[in-house]
Parts: sequence; C-alpha cells; structure tokens
Amino acid sequence: MASLLRLPSLLSPSKPLLRRRLLAARLAASAASRGQASASAGAAAAETRGGDREGQVTPRSADFNAWYTDVIAAAELADYGPVRGTMVIRPYGYAIWEAIQDYLNVKFKETGHSNMYFPQFIPYSFIEKEASHVEGFSPELALVTIGGGKELEEKLVVRPTSETIVNHMFTKWIQSYRDLPLMINQWANVTRWEMRTKPFIRTLEFLWQEGHTAHATLEEAEKEAMQMINVYTKFAYEHAAIPVIPGRKSRVETFAGANRTYTIEAMMGDKKALQAGTSHNLGQNFSRAFGTQFMDENGQIEHVWQTSWAISTRFVGGIIMTHGDDAGLMLPPRIAPIQVIIVPIWKKGDEKAAVLEAVDSVQKILKEAGIRVKVDDSELRTPGWKFNHYEMKGVPVRIEIGPRDVTNKSVVVSRRDVPGKQGKEFGVSMEPSILVNQIKGRLDDIQASLLQKAITFRDSNIVDISSYGELKEAISEGKWARGPWSASDADELKVKEETSATIRCYPFEQPEGTKKCFMTGNPAEEVAIFAKSY
Amino acid sequence: MASLLRLPSLLSPSKPLLRRRLLAARLAASAASRGQASASAGAAAAETRGGDREGQVTPRSADFNAWYTDVIAAAELADYGPVRGTMVIRPYGYAIWEAIQDYLNVKFKETGHSNMYFPQFIPYSFIEKEASHVEGFSPELALVTIGGGKELEEKLVVRPTSETIVNHMFTKWIQSYRDLPLMINQWANVTRWEMRTKPFIRTLEFLWQEGHTAHATLEEAEKEAMQMINVYTKFAYEHAAIPVIPGRKSRVETFAGANRTYTIEAMMGDKKALQAGTSHNLGQNFSRAFGTQFMDENGQIEHVWQTSWAISTRFVGGIIMTHGDDAGLMLPPRIAPIQVIIVPIWKKGDEKAAVLEAVDSVQKILKEAGIRVKVDDSELRTPGWKFNHYEMKGVPVRIEIGPRDVTNKSVVVSRRDVPGKQGKEFGVSMEPSILVNQIKGRLDDIQASLLQKAITFRDSNIVDISSYGELKEAISEGKWARGPWSASDADELKVKEETSATIRCYPFEQPEGTKKCFMTGNPAEEVAIFAKSY
Repeated sequence: MASLLRLPSLLSPSKPLLRRRLLAARLAASAASRGQASASAGAAAAETRGGDREGQVTPRSADFNAWYTDVIAAAELADYGPVRGTMVIRPYGYAIWEAIQDYLNVKFKETGHSNMYFPQFIPYSFIEKEASHVEGFSPELALVTIGGGKELEEKLVVRPTSETIVNHMFTKWIQSYRDLPLMINQWANVTRWEMRTKPFIRTLEFLWQEGHTAHATLEEAEKEAMQMINVYTKFAYEHAAIPVIPGRKSRVETFAGANRTYTIEAMMGDKKALQAGTSHNLGQNFSRAFGTQFMDENGQIEHVWQTSWAISTRFVGGIIMTHGDDAGLMLPPRIAPIQVIIVPIWKKGDEKAAVLEAVDSVQKILKEAGIRVKVDDSELRTPGWKFNHYEMKGVPVRIEIGPRDVTNKSVVVSRRDVPGKQGKEFGVSMEPSILVNQIKGRLDDIQASLLQKAITFRDSNIVDISSYGELKEAISEGKWARGPWSASDADELKVKEETSATIRCYPFEQPEGTKKCFMTGNPAEEVAIFAKSY
Repeated sequence: MASLLRLPSLLSPSKPLLRRRLLAARLAASAASRGQASASAGAAAAETRGGDREGQVTPRSADFNAWYTDVIAAAELADYGPVRGTMVIRPYGYAIWEAIQDYLNVKFKETGHSNMYFPQFIPYSFIEKEASHVEGFSPELALVTIGGGKELEEKLVVRPTSETIVNHMFTKWIQSYRDLPLMINQWANVTRWEMRTKPFIRTLEFLWQEGHTAHATLEEAEKEAMQMINVYTKFAYEHAAIPVIPGRKSRVETFAGANRTYTIEAMMGDKKALQAGTSHNLGQNFSRAFGTQFMDENGQIEHVWQTSWAISTRFVGGIIMTHGDDAGLMLPPRIAPIQVIIVPIWKKGDEKAAVLEAVDSVQKILKEAGIRVKVDDSELRTPGWKFNHYEMKGVPVRIEIGPRDVTNKSVVVSRRDVPGKQGKEFGVSMEPSILVNQIKGRLDDIQASLLQKAITFRDSNIVDISSYGELKEAISEGKWARGPWSASDADELKVKEETSATIRCYPFEQPEGTKKCFMTGNPAEEVAIFAKSY
C-alpha cells in the first residue's frame, strides 16, 4: 500500500487533477489504517544508502530500489543536495541530460519553435486564475515571501510550470491571426514541493524543457500536441532505446488545466511504469483565464487554442532503470557521453611507451570518425579496477591494448551489453578503416540490441485481460494489464485503491474488433493499459 | 547624484563588499539631502517606456537610456515580466544569448571543465558561513519561507551565486590530491533583489554561467582565474567585437569572499563602463568556511584553493550599447542569429515566381556555406518595412532580389554598418562561389570594422591624467580617466562621492616607467582606470 501514499505527489510533468481530487476524500477517511510509518522509514533508508561505497552495488534482483540509488552513487550521476528532496546532478549525469538536450533542441527548432526565457517568479494571483490549475498545483508550491529584506506585498510562486506567466505575456504579444501560431520553448528549472523524492524521478527542483504554443484553431493545436508526443516517441525509441507506449491519458490522469494529455509510458526494469514525457492540448482554458485573444481573418475576436509539452531530467532515471544491470549502468551508444573507453595495459616499464603510442593512435582514429572516445591511462588504478569502473558507468564499448596487441597491430574489444567472454573479441585490426568499421558496427549493434531487449521485456510483461479478476492477477504479478475499458472515473479509482494500478494510457495502437469493458461489460471503444507506476 | 543611489546594488556578477561597507556609513549620514524621489521617478518612467511602438525609437544622441529601452522593445529582444524587476527574454534576444553560450561552452570544455547542476535552494545558514559573503549578499536575497503549504523550519535562499552550496558538495567529494583539480561549470538562473533594474543590465533574475574550481595550490588557482578572464577577453574581442579592458579590481571593488577579482570592462556608447565578466581567486576563504580539505602527496591535510568566474545575460546589454545606432541594433556577424536577410521584391504577379525561385537558390547557396540566412517573403509587409525591421534587428547583411536582378543573375547587397548608398552594392553575381566569397568577405569586414570602430571610440575617450583636477574634468566630460594610483580606500570612496566615478580596474596593460599617485603624490606601482559605470 506504500504507493498509495505517493499519490498526491506529481507524476512530472503531467499533473492529474481529477485523480487528486477523487482520492483526497478517500484518503482522508482511511489514512490512519495504512502503514505510513514503515513506508517513511523505507524512504529514509533509501536516502542514506549508496554513499561512497564505490563498486558496491546491491544486486538488481535483490532490491531494485536499492540498486537504483547505488548505481546513481557509484556511477557518479547525482548526489543529494543539502535541502531535503533536492539533487545535485554530477558531470556524468549532466552529460546524459546534455545528450537529451542536444537531440531535442534541434528537433524543436526544426519543427518551428524558438527558445526563450520567462522569469521563474510568478505572482500568486496568476496561479489562481485557472481553476483546475490552482487546485492541481497549490499543495506543492514553494513561495517567496521575503525579498531584499522586506516582507512582500504579494507572495511569489517559484514556477512549478509556466502556463500562467506564458499566457500573461502571450496576451501582450498576440493581437492578430498574423501573430499566430506562436511557438516557443524554454529550458529551465522548476520547483514542486514533493514529499517523497527519488533522484531524477521525483525531486523538489528539476530541469526540463517546456514548450508552449498558441494557435488560431483547435485543429492546429491538436496537430501540434500530437506532433510533439511523436517527437518524444521517436527520441525514446531511436536514441534512448526505450520502447515507450504513446497514448492518451484518462480523464482522471489528465494535466490540471488541459483538455487532453498525451503521454509516453515506459516499462522500467522492475516492470513499474514511468511517465516519461507529456504533451497537452490545453484548449482555450488558459486563454480564457488570461484573456489571450486575437482577431481572425474575418475581424472576429477569438481566444487562442494552446498546447504545452515537456520532458524532464526524470528521463535520465528512465534510462538507468530500463537498461541497467547488476554491474551498473548500461547506456545506449547514441546518448552515451563516452561511447568507447580505451584501457592501456602494460607490466614492464619498457612496454609502456609502445602501448601508449598505440593507444594514442587508436584514440585519434576513432575521434576523427566522430566517435566519443576516452583514454584512461591513469597509473593510480589497475586495469581491473578500470574495467569495473567503466562498466558501472555503462560505457558501451571497451578497448584494451597491451604489448601483445601492439605487436599484432590489433586490439581487444568488449561489449558492455554482452558479459564475459562472449562479448569479448581479440585481434581486431588497428588498421583505421577496419577499426572504425568494427567499432561503429558494434555501437549500432548495441543500440539495436538494447532496444530489442527492452521491447521483448516489455511485451512479455503486458497481459491482455478481459475481466477484473485477470487484471488483479496481472498486477499482483507486477505486470501491465491491457483491456477494454469504458467504465467510470469512480471505477478507475476503485482499481487504483484495490490494486495500486492506474490507467497509464489509452494506447494509440489499438486492437481491431468490437470490445467489451472488462469492468462493466458495456461496449468499449478502446483498450486501456493499467500498471503500477513511479 | 542619482548614480550614488545605485551603489548598493550589484555590479553583476562581482559583488564588491568593501565598497558597500564603506559607503553604508556615509550614505546613512547624508541620504536625506540627495534627490531620491526624482531618481526613482526617472526609473519608473524608463520602465513604462518602449512598449509596442514598432520602429519608433528615441534617437541615441537625444537620450541614450530611452534609446536603449526603445531598441529592446522594437527589436523584440526582451519584455518586462509581471514581477517588478524581472525580464522575459524573447526569442531574438535569447538567440544572442545562445550564441554566447555556444562559444563559451566549447571553450570551457576545451579548458577541462565539466557542466553540472546544483540546486538553487540554499539553506540560509550556508550564506552566513563566510563572513564577507553574507555581508555582501544578505541585503539582496529572495527567501522561500513556505513550501508545500507549510512554514519552513529554515528559510531557503534562492541562489544569488553558488559558492556556498558548491563548497558544501566539494567537501563531500574531495578527499585526496587525486580528486584535484575539480573544475566545473553550470548554466543557471540566479536571483538578486535589485531595487533599480534595467533590462539585461540589472534584473531581479538573470541567466549566467558560473564556473567553480578547486586546486591543490594557490598558484594553480591563480593561473585558472587568469585563464578564464583571458577566455572572456578573447570572446569579447573576437566574437562580440567589444574591446574590453581586462584588469584587476581594487580592494574596494573585489567580490565578497574573493582575494582577487579580475574583470573585463567595456565602454558603452554613452561612455559609461560596463563590467562584462569577472573571475575570482577565492583563496581559501570558502574552503575554510566549509572545511573543504584534501590530503596532499605527503599525507598533509590542507584546504583547497578556489576560483569562480561568470558571464551573464548582462553581456547582451553590452552588445546593444556598444554597437547600436539610431536605426537600432547592430550585431557583430559572429554572434548574429541572422547574418543575412534576403528580401524578394516584385511588382507584377508574373514576376513573383522567378524572383522567389532565385531567392530560394541564393538561400540554399548561403546555407550550404554555413551562413545563417533567413528569407522574409511575407506579403503582409512591404520591402521598405522589412528593410527598417531588419536594420532595427541589427542583421549585418541584407540581400535584395528583384526582377532585374533575376535577369542579370545578380543581387543587391547592403551592409548594416554603412548607411545609405555607400553600403549598397548592385550587381553582385549569383554564381555560387563568387556570391559566397563576397558575402563571407563582407561579414568578415563588418566584424573587423565594428571592433575597430569600438576601439577608436574607446581610445578617444580615455584621458591620461596626473592630478585629481584632471580626473574631475575628464569624468565631468563623461570620459574615462587613467592615472597612477596608490591612495587609500577612503580616497577611492571620496572620488566616488565627488565625481560618481569608481576604479573600474588596474589594467593588465600598464605603461612603463616610474609613477606618482595623482591623489597623494606618493610612488604608485600601477595606473588605475576611473569611470562612471552601469
């Protein structure tokens, strides 16, 4: 029942208002009977675990959560900040975020968006203007009440998301249909006062991009919202090797202030779902609240139609939990800060110069081919230590070069994703065109193989169900349940309370044929996917 | 005397503590006699000016401040946020910031720094740990006192700069000399509660990068601080075409918590100085306050030696105020988001297709050559409107293509920096290699010419002085005064009170020969530069 306690917190970046509202009443009635104390103690233990024990990682199968926090510490991805719930993103973790940024930033510009920056302090009164929005966000706000030594007349909200301030400015900038569409994005930090935090997945402050657009018609806004969830889907599959399931959120799980929320749902290594990105069709909700109007081609004054969409540093957590294993992180080559690590090996002093010369030459060959390569020639650590270290860091390919390799003009190549001898190949030629070809081929293989492995894992853990009993069974086995659904919001909440599973989405990809709701027996238009989630 | 009132505010990113401390006493004694009310009214007027009057810009010579805010509005660089003193950076202004980021980010990595991210909420107690630091920053803090609906036990500071939280984490990460040097950077927002704000130059929240490094020796830290001020200097000269004067701050103007502050000082179009970037040798001030120690190679425990360095969105203001003219912004090609604007011109409907075809072909040629080019083929605006619009936006080169040009297989090229006929050349061939050569040549010329013009302007407005009388005369004419200086902090403050000028720096480039302090007649080792500043 511990996951119920996590409910009021945010499934970033979407904030389902209706679920919160429905649950608030029930929780109030029954909170006392649930083991809150033990759940909190578990969280506290997780917080202190995984400090400086380099290389000592809890096996993934033994305790997935402990494994996760251990890997984050051992691979130097992040650390806890001094304020409860905050996170320091360390260089290696930040480099993964930069890889995500580099890809998406180009795609956003290609699809017609410009970057800009809005202030993070929002007058409290703004948050109150859109009724669902304030209800969804007010329990999680950080408020600035003192500035320059003085009590402020109006409290300032540290942005939890920027729809309100964006609309305030859009109202100034938009007059005519000529000003539309207005399509912008910002890379920024956001703050949500979460009670139960987990590095990358749910932190008091996190980094994200938030896109905001305004259009002349509902159709254009809908097209934009769909376009952006498709950008996210493509990124997840092709770069992060995460086979997300794109779909539409249920009404209960829709963002506070949106008409429709689209989502990409990823299955983590423990089979829990992670909402990895969202795109909202906001309709005219914010434009009505903020008076964002334009004159159309016929001289009529209309409210604009809007979207917003976001991916956050949470995605880094998704990468860790999708691909990692007992040896640590495993990074898809396309987003790996280091794609190839070269470890020189020598025993006698007179071997060193020749080995390092070969290492240098191999590094240059790979660098010129556009491969992200690093040499670790430190004499403070043994080759064995380095093998473990870069496995922990999830570097896709390792090259070893020793005296015998120098003589043979070849190198030893190991794959991170294939453990032991099977993934190790001796005698790969140092001849530039052969070497580059071999390494690029392996990187491509690893990229494809990680995706295929994740697809297989995902598909073998989704159960098609046709009754509530079957759903209960699937969920109790930790799996996802997929079945026809047309029942009420109250029924959806009942499932949540009884099984801890929520509707993750109505997937875009739907089976053909007529369907009957597994809960009510009524006709259903769609199947929904139910799962426990982060 | 208005500028005295601005004193307690921050010359971002350096925060001179001693100046604040010395002035506090005097200001308390004499504040009543200075026209505070009128100064505030002036600021308020500036805030409301420059709204939506596209194309209507106050002449620069008539009122430099009004011109500045008008250009920011008309070129769509920024807008005022809803909270007093905050700024929305619009896409075109943000694109200039991105150009700054793109250059510096590469340089930082080349010089061995990694990006990472620290939380923006800092426990209040951290700020109090370094004595000068708290004195320098506490008057300008924004404080979060409520989180998740509850009053917090400890107030949280919204980061004004990150030395304290950085040191808290460095203390966890650094044990041995093997962990040094530790060299990191973050791109982030920072908050300082400024009372008198000006877009880009001084805002309540701004964007910057802050570098933080820890070293085993004082010498290494000093070398790093110098290296980074040199990176900034090179960027200013070679990319922003701003001939900054690098030098060392006086003790009075040194950052709160630093042993030494290096600065780059730029002369704006109104001859006031802008501190455009700083690099601090922090000595062991923060490592002692936070216990950041390491074991050296001999097994001795020592405190680390540190630096920090920053450039902010203020630099965008410096670009506007260095190069702009009555027609608006003028951007150095290397940082211009659009280097070439193409305007098609046709009158009869049957001309359109051929003109647009030529425009398309020219755009492709330039794009392939790596030139940032944009076509404005909107039929909602006249060519004349577009000419003014892109001049206002400071686009370095304009290409016009009309029916006659199509016939002649040539284009018309105009330079933003040379007004009228002189800057216009007809009959530039469309032949790809010739065209690319011509355009690249012009962009290089413009880049060099803007720098040369700024150097000439700067040098003709710096006066070498040998007495206090000469300083007063130079300052009253709005110029910079350069003269030998070895007088006291109190004398420095006297100059400030009597002339509004401060020591901008002891420039690295010093005249040879013996020197005599112009104030005291005592021997002086260096000349200092005095000027009024932003």
